[in-house]
Order: sequence, then structure tokens, then C-alpha cells
Amino acid sequence: MNSFGQKFRFSTFGESHGNALGCIVDGVPAGIKIDEKFIQSEMDRRRPGKNEFATARKEGDKVEILSGVFEGTTTGSPIAMVIFNENQKSKDYTNIKDLFRPGHADFTYFHKYGIRDYRGGGRSSARETAARVAAGSIAKLLLAEVGVEIRSGIYAIDGVEASSFDFDYAKSSDIYSLDKNKEEFQKEAILAAKNSHNSVGGVALVNVKNAPIGLGEPLYYRLDAQIAAAMMGINAVKAVEIGDGIEASRVKGYDNNDQIDKNGFKTNHSGGILGGISNGDDINVKVYFKATPSVFIKQASIDIHNNEVSCELKGRHDPCVAVRGSIVAESMMSIVIADMLLLNMSSNINSIKKVYS
Amino acid sequence: MNSFGQKFRFSTFGESHGNALGCIVDGVPAGIKIDEKFIQSEMDRRRPGKNEFATARKEGDKVEILSGVFEGTTTGSPIAMVIFNENQKSKDYTNIKDLFRPGHADFTYFHKYGIRDYRGGGRSSARETAARVAAGSIAKLLLAEVGVEIRSGIYAIDGVEASSFDFDYAKSSDIYSLDKNKEEFQKEAILAAKNSHNSVGGVALVNVKNAPIGLGEPLYYRLDAQIAAAMMGINAVKAVEIGDGIEASRVKGYDNNDQIDKNGFKTNHSGGILGGISNGDDINVKVYFKATPSVFIKQASIDIHNNEVSCELKGRHDPCVAVRGSIVAESMMSIVIADMLLLNMSSNINSIKKVYS
Amino acid sequence: MNSFGQKFRFSTFGESHGNALGCIVDGVPAGIKIDEKFIQSEMDRRRPGKNEFATARKEGDKVEILSGVFEGTTTGSPIAMVIFNENQKSKDYTNIKDLFRPGHADFTYFHKYGIRDYRGGGRSSARETAARVAAGSIAKLLLAEVGVEIRSGIYAIDGVEASSFDFDYAKSSDIYSLDKNKEEFQKEAILAAKNSHNSVGGVALVNVKNAPIGLGEPLYYRLDAQIAAAMMGINAVKAVEIGDGIEASRVKGYDNNDQIDKNGFKTNHSGGILGGISNGDDINVKVYFKATPSVFIKQASIDIHNNEVSCELKGRHDPCVAVRGSIVAESMMSIVIADMLLLNMSSNINSIKKVYS
Amino acid sequence: MNSFGQKFRFSTFGESHGNALGCIVDGVPAGIKIDEKFIQSEMDRRRPGKNEFATARKEGDKVEILSGVFEGTTTGSPIAMVIFNENQKSKDYTNIKDLFRPGHADFTYFHKYGIRDYRGGGRSSARETAARVAAGSIAKLLLAEVGVEIRSGIYAIDGVEASSFDFDYAKSSDIYSLDKNKEEFQKEAILAAKNSHNSVGGVALVNVKNAPIGLGEPLYYRLDAQIAAAMMGINAVKAVEIGDGIEASRVKGYDNNDQIDKNGFKTNHSGGILGGISNGDDINVKVYFKATPSVFIKQASIDIHNNEVSCELKGRHDPCVAVRGSIVAESMMSIVIADMLLLNMSSNINSIKKVYS
Repeated sequence: MNSFGQKFRFSTFGESHGNALGCIVDGVPAGIKIDEKFIQSEMDRRRPGKNEFATARKEGDKVEILSGVFEGTTTGSPIAMVIFNENQKSKDYTNIKDLFRPGHADFTYFHKYGIRDYRGGGRSSARETAARVAAGSIAKLLLAEVGVEIRSGIYAIDGVEASSFDFDYAKSSDIYSLDKNKEEFQKEAILAAKNSHNSVGGVALVNVKNAPIGLGEPLYYRLDAQIAAAMMGINAVKAVEIGDGIEASRVKGYDNNDQIDKNGFKTNHSGGILGGISNGDDINVKVYFKATPSVFIKQASIDIHNNEVSCELKGRHDPCVAVRGSIVAESMMSIVIADMLLLNMSSNINSIKKVYS
Repeated sequence: MNSFGQKFRFSTFGESHGNALGCIVDGVPAGIKIDEKFIQSEMDRRRPGKNEFATARKEGDKVEILSGVFEGTTTGSPIAMVIFNENQKSKDYTNIKDLFRPGHADFTYFHKYGIRDYRGGGRSSARETAARVAAGSIAKLLLAEVGVEIRSGIYAIDGVEASSFDFDYAKSSDIYSLDKNKEEFQKEAILAAKNSHNSVGGVALVNVKNAPIGLGEPLYYRLDAQIAAAMMGINAVKAVEIGDGIEASRVKGYDNNDQIDKNGFKTNHSGGILGGISNGDDINVKVYFKATPSVFIKQASIDIHNNEVSCELKGRHDPCVAVRGSIVAESMMSIVIADMLLLNMSSNINSIKKVYS
Repeated sequence: MNSFGQKFRFSTFGESHGNALGCIVDGVPAGIKIDEKFIQSEMDRRRPGKNEFATARKEGDKVEILSGVFEGTTTGSPIAMVIFNENQKSKDYTNIKDLFRPGHADFTYFHKYGIRDYRGGGRSSARETAARVAAGSIAKLLLAEVGVEIRSGIYAIDGVEASSFDFDYAKSSDIYSLDKNKEEFQKEAILAAKNSHNSVGGVALVNVKNAPIGLGEPLYYRLDAQIAAAMMGINAVKAVEIGDGIEASRVKGYDNNDQIDKNGFKTNHSGGILGGISNGDDINVKVYFKATPSVFIKQASIDIHNNEVSCELKGRHDPCVAVRGSIVAESMMSIVIADMLLLNMSSNINSIKKVYS
Repeated sequence: MNSFGQKFRFSTFGESHGNALGCIVDGVPAGIKIDEKFIQSEMDRRRPGKNEFATARKEGDKVEILSGVFEGTTTGSPIAMVIFNENQKSKDYTNIKDLFRPGHADFTYFHKYGIRDYRGGGRSSARETAARVAAGSIAKLLLAEVGVEIRSGIYAIDGVEASSFDFDYAKSSDIYSLDKNKEEFQKEAILAAKNSHNSVGGVALVNVKNAPIGLGEPLYYRLDAQIAAAMMGINAVKAVEIGDGIEASRVKGYDNNDQIDKNGFKTNHSGGILGGISNGDDINVKVYFKATPSVFIKQASIDIHNNEVSCELKGRHDPCVAVRGSIVAESMMSIVIADMLLLNMSSNINSIKKVYS
């Protein structure tokens, strides 16, 4: 259950303050050139400690490839990647050893397993998402071979929403903002919350260009369902919209339908997915992150013996997890699309004959 | 890929205008009394043709159990259930044989498979969801054995939102409305759209009471991720929120955290899920359905030869799929919770010793 | 867990004396012509009641296709097939309602599930294998599209072994014997056992011609491992050999290796599989069936209350399950090869480019 | 596809002459004490280079646990283990870079993937089985909590078969021989083959004591089927027998049936499995290993350009892979039994109530 995907499938391991974290990516086709610099550049996009909008924890997040690549090319064998933790400060957590932080998974892990690695959330920490980005970078290299591109950016912070969407600009923005006219307001919202020992939420927009028509396996591995699972499974995500999403429940059917002409769909209310299958248009997904639960304001809680206690947190935390979370969402989308691309290959007899003739 | 769930797992088959549809439910524990009247009453909640707010297609939706039940009790063997179609009118669809209806899966199925059963959408029709309700009723019988209850109702129609939530009232409402003060307005919205040959969208609220703490398998079979997949995979769903959902991305961290005292969580912004695991509080999920794509207004489209054509639909359709869709959402939630309940049994050595000592 | 295969995947349901049994076959590519006569002819090869070497139970084993085929062609949707039981005689089993038949699954099912369908073994009966043959016939139609052929025959009965192997002869033999010179002795062994109220075992040989090189997904979905699972999972099977099998453990390495020249492998000790992957040579597998456990001789047993009882069976049984079992083995091999064929499509980037360019 | 098991599930990575190999073990219940010395002692049983009956390659096979264990106890999170290779001699393989060694997977990997890691077989090398032993040791620690024990030993070498079975003696034997009276002859067979640059095969016997009744998930995850897959999937295995195996196909039904009295089964021809489910008796399985394909005698082969070449091997190889292979078989059996133990927990409603009440 620490694995994701059917054909392009990765499994992760590791805790926030353990020795290492990493993943095995299985199902990667042989013959793909592995550009280690590219992988590292993807890691760097999610890496903590880069600026004032992120946690102060410093991690190099250097990826070591342990298997599956031979002379720079994939062999079809599983690719194991490991990232050794460098900047653990487990002592920051001894004061919360026995208490449950509000908004965190402490309570649920303890009750499910009867034991919990309290150091920074252990397995439930968003630190694990580094492994998702490593796996996602392999997916991107595969997708590039067939011309598919995955992009993301910040749509909103603390309710400040973008009104234009520039994925290229987002790449250079400190907070991956899609709209340079809103960026400053979004930054201010983050810093204001940080300065008052509080935190804010935000929204990422993920976009897929040039997806082939036909991705998605109906009825229970539909593209939209698997995207929803991928996104809702990211730490702190509480809502997911595809295409017009909520708005599609408020307009009339005629207005929501994307009519078609010779050149394709005239509009894209559907977000590129019809009946759970990609229709060739851009896939657009909004991912809603709650405000970081780690705040430095006194909160009421209980300990593992059910005593009421006051919870006062130390440690280093992102004032807005949506920012680095957007890169994780982009990585997960890459993995979903790569998986669906491989699964779709046997959808009809013509494809099969192409491969075996 | 027509299967859902890991331990409590069902697989469906059937097309809108084929002979029959149905499912196999696998992983049902032995020893559960099967109340066939209850199963049929669940089917009746989703059944078409009951009133003016639903499609005119008349189907009895009688379920036949073919296996897995012996003398009224489950045996641990797979339970096959079949529903024979009665009121097919395939001829209604000959005029759309070669064209792609806007907002439907015609285009994507045709391109993915190179062939399509055009009769009412074939496999992509919401008629298939009858099988989900049959499977869901088995899940409910299992959940009842350990005191878990699943409920649903209509939160909004065409933007008219409930301000009170009465799941008991919803059971008797023609449109499963949660708020009797809003019900008439919601009904009017449906009929107004229907009379103008158009359609409306809506929102279902699904609620779980008495879920044990600990449901959800981190990190890639989290409860929230699997709920998102289950809901987004229902026909016409375009967005899913858990707990406060989108609102959680707009408030500060301190305000969104659920603080805790001796009696449990003081608030339930999280919707009963922390770190992807149930925390014992009510699980609340909002499911957004787009307006029915089948409208009786002329639309622009193309045919399979890429000729531009005018699309004028006949047939029988729900003016608001959210209404009957809410029952499907409730069924899918039942299945997710049952699956997680079985999966969670081996989470720690104490549970294992309880079973094997 | 009543499902088999990853890409070409089938799920079965049904009990020996229930209303019906059947299967859903998922993952079948669209565009395959479905010859219903061929499916029925495969069913007839396994069908009971045809001659004195099989059980007297009369079943027509007529297959009804409920879904997934439109105008004679597969659509990519799941194919459901159902076989209604006709000749149940549940009363034959009331005397064994509470006792455990030696050599049968009565004891283990009762203890695992706490309940058991005692009518002819319920789910554990070999009657369920009719559904495997139905699924296997779909696999064969897929394999025929790329020129792969699956064959089988009886290698040995009661220790009487074939010394020549004629798969065409086997098709017309009453006991599917591969060697017409041994057939009479094999038949005599069956009838002699039958006349003394006893039973015999036997061995099936299954052969695959023209399998593409490259089938099998290392390391835990190897072709040989999956064949072993498929065969050992057939009722009454107790051993499986691939290629020279046991003999390969008794000869020297040099003698067991298949040396290679320009035209391919000079010998085929390996049975067409190296490192878990098909090498293009014939795949040869021997499947060992124990003697039918249903014998009409008094045996010692206990009942469900742990009282010692005498077990005297009635009912209708095959004197040698290997005969009809060989058809099941052939069907399971067809399914394994079809599954591996679909899985192998994404093994390298060149295949992927063939499909998506 | 580099994963094995459903609930107790491990995934491996690594090549013979890569940096490292290892595994992630997922689904391990929380609360199990992890004795690292025990894990290492299991590794040492399989470790190469210990005596003249094994390959001269020296590897310490030190296991590092990277995750999933906190203060000596499992947390329910995935356990990653890594073994860094120490004694790679890739240069030994440059002469076989472009040719296919008879009896090896070189030919099939090259054709499947279009590329191959030629260093010692890469991924197809039995070196990978070190990771299986690491995973198996975790399974053993879990099984010990409920009193189940897994043992193995060498039944035959080069056709020299044991006539007594002493699993304790096997532990101290250099070749894990079950029969001290046959051990010397078996050793001589190995050394004779080695001295003539050839190799021999052998047979391992694996035994399970105290397995609970009820393990095995019918019909397609039966205990016998999964054991067959686990064993046939080990490098060089070509046949698997359960209980009396092949002999069960040669005797009469009455003689093969295990009759029952108050104290249980009077005999154990079935090898502890009926209908694919454990019956509480000892589980006995024979695993047949072919003679090591790496022999130092000139063989005919071809290169990747289809030129005929003479194949003369260098490198270090086991003269009889069955010896160390028996430990791998024992490990795989441990994993299968652990997996089935966890899966069986939800087989009936009584077990579920035990956990949730």
C-alpha cells in the first residue's frame, strides 16, 4: 500500500528523520536515456530551505540511483533511488513525543499502529514527497519520448487567486506563482502568516499538454479517478477539481458541454477528460492544500494517556505547504499520465499487431 | 480495470442497452446474513422512472444473486449479482450511431477502442451504476455488523445550497434533499431546466458515522485518496471535497486545525480524516456532479469521419444526474469503508494475535 | 482473490450445485471477432457426461455472453459469460452435510469460513473450471490474431506414459491421449479403477507454439512462475514440471544447457523458458493430477462435531480427473500467454513509439 | 512486477554487479521486535564464498535497514533494506558482453528489452535472491509471533536422495543435507562436477510446522498455487511438488486420500494442503533446481549479431545452485505463509468482530 500505479509503478520508503528515504520505480521501459542532472533539477524545485517562503530545514536532496540504469540507459529493471537525510533534528520533537499535534496524523497513526515515530511525523511527514518527485522525474523522461509535457504553478495563496496563467513564469517565481501581478500579494500573505506564527493554504494548478487521446482505463481506473486519488493523497490536500470542477455543477448542461467542430473541441470545460478518458485537449486540475497544520500558537490537545495538554510546537515548517506541494502535484500527474500511457497500449487489436508484427 | 477495492473488491460488467449488467463482489467475509429485501430497497433508491425528476426509462432493477450465498448467509465465495435490462430502446440511438454527443464519452471511447457501442453510451452509461449500488448494499450489510452507518443527501442543485442537513429527511425526499426548506427551490430548478430542454448540476453530501479510528492504508491507499477516486470515478463528477475542502485552503492554519480535548476533537474541519486515516469523527465528503450532458437543444459536433454535423438528441435522460448519483456516491462510500475495514485488520500484531490465538 | 491475470484478467463465480457459474473477462482488447461456435466447442471438450471415462452428470454447458461484445466484435469492455446449471442433484449430498470427505476441501473450507456449501463441494468443486474454459476460449481468439497456438493432451494415466506425442490425435481421442499406442492401456486403467469403485491419477502435457520471444515479467511475474501458479491452482494438481523438469536436477549442467546456433536453440531442455522469459521455442509443461478423491469405498472420517464417522459417498464423479483437467490446463495456459503478451507490450521504448507515433 | 505478495508484500531491486541490491517490505504489522542479528544470520546462511561447495565470490551481505523500524520495533511503515555489493568483478564479463550464454537469460533479456546488463547476468543473476532472504527474515519474525516455523534442507544432489529427513542436522551441514548418511555422497557429486568444470542439480525440501488451518485464498490465490509460483520463480527451478506430488498421479484415489480420525489426519499425502487451503498438518514441498548453467566447458552459441561463436566462461559460480537455493526457497515459503496469514484474517465475520469489538 506504499505503492502507486499499475504499469508505471513506484513504491516509497522512509521517514522524516530516519536515515534515508527513497523509492523503487518499476515498469519503466528499457531504452530511455536517464539524464541525472534533470532528475536533480526536479528535486531542487521541491527542495526545502531555499528561501523565506519555505521551511528552514536544509537538505541537499541528492538522489543516488542504485539500480535499473546501465551505461546511462534504462534496462527495464526496477530503478531504485535513495536520498540520505542530512539535516535531521530529532531533538526538536522530544517535547511532542507523547502528544498529538492538532491537524497532524499523530493521533491516527498512534491509534492505527499502536506505536508512532514521533520525529517530525515520521512516515506521515511531507518529507516523503521527495521520493515522489524522484519517481516523477523518471516519468517525465518517458513522457518526453512521446512529446507529452506536464506543468504546474500556484493558482492561489490564502484566497488570492491568479487571473492569468503563465506556466513559464511560474518556473522562475520563488513561490511558483502563475500570475506575476498577483505574486507579490501572495508572497505577502505567506510572510504575514509566518510573522504571526500562523500559516496559510493555497491552490496548485496542474496542466498536461499533448496527452494522446485515449488515456484512462474505464470504469475503475479512469483517468479522472486516478488523478483525484493521486492529488488527494498528497499531504494537506483537501479538494480536487477537474476542468471547470465545482462551476460545472452550477451551470446548465448546454453551457457546460464542449461542442465540437473539425478542429476539435471549441471549449475545454471538461478539463480534457470525457468519460474518464483523455480527449486530447489540455488536462487541467486544481489541487487545494489546507494551511500548514504546524503553527507556533498554543493549541489544546491531549497526550497518549488522554490527559489534556497544551501543545506548543518547535521545529521548522513551511508557512504554506501549497508552494512546494505544487511540484509534488506535478510529479504525481507525470506518474499518472505515464502509467495510463503504458496501460492504454493494449486497448485494441491494432496496437497489438503493431508491436508483434 | 473494471474492478474496485483491494479486499472488499467488486467487478462490474454490462452496457446500457445490452442484455444485462451486474457484478461479482469478492472478499465478502463468510457468515453475514443477506437480506435480499434490503438489497432491493437500495436498488429502488437509485432506480429510474420513479418521478418527474428522473429519466422516464422504466427498469425494475431486480437483482438476482447467482452465487456466494448459501441458505441466506455468505460463504466467503464471490457473490455474483445480475440485473437483466427490460426497457432498452436501442432504436432511439440509431441517429447518433456515427456522431459524438458533446459532453459524452462517445468521442473518447471511439478513439481509444476503434469501435463503440453507441446504444445509450454502452459501457460509459450511468446505467452501470446500478451494479455499484448492488455491491454497495452488500458492503452496508457488512458494516452494520460492526455498527458503521453510511448516509447521503443532496446538498445543492443548480447552486441552491442546503443550510441544514437532515439525512433522515433526505431519505423520504423525492430528490433526496437534505434541507426541506430548500427542497422546493431545488425541485423548481430541475423542472425549469427540463422544460427548457436543458439540464442542471448538483452536489451530494456523503456522511459516515461510527467509522473506527484507523481506516486507511498510508501512503498510497489512504482513505481520502481512495474516497476521491471512488467519487471522481462516478459518471459526471468533476470535483470532490473532504471536510472543509476548498475553504481549508482559504483560512489560517490555527483556524483550520481541530483542537482536541478529553472527549475528542472539538471541531471537525478535517472531515474525519487526518493523514489519510479516519480519526473516529464523522467523515464528510461533498461530490460535485456536472449538469447532465444530454440536453435537447441543437449542438455542434462532428461524426466519426470528421464531418461537422448538428447534434439533436432523443432518448430519455435525467434532468439532474446528481439526484440518483447521490445514491451511487453513498454506495461507493460504503464499499470504500468496508474495504478499509478489512485491510486495517492486520495493521498491528495485537490484532493478529486476537484472531489467531 | 477469485481473479487471475494482470492485463488479461478473469474473475469467476459459482458453485457446483448453485444456479449458475460464470466469469467476467476484463482487459480483452477491442476489435476481436468473437466466434461463439468456437467458444462452445471449447466448452464441449471439457463438458461432463460425454462417455464412460467421465462423470455421468449431464450438463449442456451453454455459454451466454452478457456484455462486452457488440455486433460480434469485442469493444474493450468486460465480457461476462454465464452458464446456468441444469443437472444439480443436491440431494445426493445431504448424507455428507456434516462430514468431511477425505481428500476433499470440506475440512479446510469449513474451518476457514465457519460455514460450507456442502452440495458437491460448492465453490471448491471442479465444476467451476467450466468458467476457466470459457475465459480460455477468449484468450485463444486473441492469441490466434498473432499466430500463437496452445495445445494439450494426456501424457500418462495411472503411470502408463506416452512415448509419442501427437496433439492432433489427442483432439479426437476419448481421453485426449497423445499416444494412440498407449491409449487402450490408459483407458483400461480408468475403467478398472471405476469398476472397483476407486479412481486413478494422470498427467497432462501442455504445449505452446509460436510464442513471441520476451513473454514473462521478471522477477515476480515470470512466465514460469505464473504457469506454475496457473497449473497448481487447478483442482487435484499436485506437481508441475517445465521442460525437462525433474530430470534437469539429475543431469550435468553441460548436458542440460541448450546450445545455440544461427537457427536457434539446438535442443529444448528448458521448455522454451529462460530466466522466466519465453525464448521462442515450444513451451512444454507437465501437469500432474492426483487420483480423484471421490471413491466409493468406505473411508474413515470425522464430522463437524469431531465425531468419528464412516464416509460412504454417493454422487457422480470422474474416475480420472486428469482427462477433463487437461482441457482446463490448456485453457489456463492460453490465459497466461495472452496476459503476458499484453504485459510485454511496454517492455521497451521502441514498442511504445510504434503504438503512439 | 518486481513485487511479490498481496498483504505481506516485498519489492526488490538491484543487479549482480551494480552498486547495491535490496528490497522494500510493505504490509509488515506494527509492533514486531526486529532482531537485526537474526536477520544477519539468515543472510549468512545464503551468503556466498563460505566453502568449496559454493562460488568463490566473497560478499559480506551486510543488511542496512533504512526505514520502518523505530527503536527496534516495526511501525507499520515500509521496511527498506539495502545490501551494498563489495566484490564485483565486472571485468570477468567483458568477454561475454555480446554473446548469449547457454542456459542463461542473456538471450531472452536482450530480446525483450533490446538492451542488457551483461555483468554477471545483471538483474537475472541469483545474486538478487539475497534480497529475498532479507525479506524472508522479516516474515519469519512475524510468523514466530504466532508460533509458525519454516525449515528446509537438501533432499537430493545429482540424483542422490535422502532417505531420512533431519532439519536440525541440515542447519549445520555445509550443504544443508537432510540425511547425514547421504551427505558425503552428495558432497562428492558436487566436487566431482566442479573438478570436471561441470555442475550438478539438486532438490530442496521445504517444511512448515504449525501453520494455522485456513491459509490460502480460493480460487486464484490458493496456497498451493502461490507456493508453486514462489518456488518456480526462483532462479534455476524447473519443477515443484506438493506433498506426494508426482506419486499422487500414480496411485489409486483410496490410497492417496488422507483419512481422518479424532486426532486429525492419519496420513499426510496431501502435503498439508486441501483445496488450496492449509489443513493444519505439516506443509511439505519439493523444489527441483537444474544444474548450474555456468560450466567451464566450451559451448556453442551466437552473439547479438547472430554470428556463431564459441562460449568459454570465466567468473565464479556455484557448482550446485540448489544448496544456497534451498535457503531462498525457505525464505520464499516464509513470505508466502506470512502473506496468507494476514489475508486470512478477514475470512469470516467472527474474526472481524474479534478485532473491532
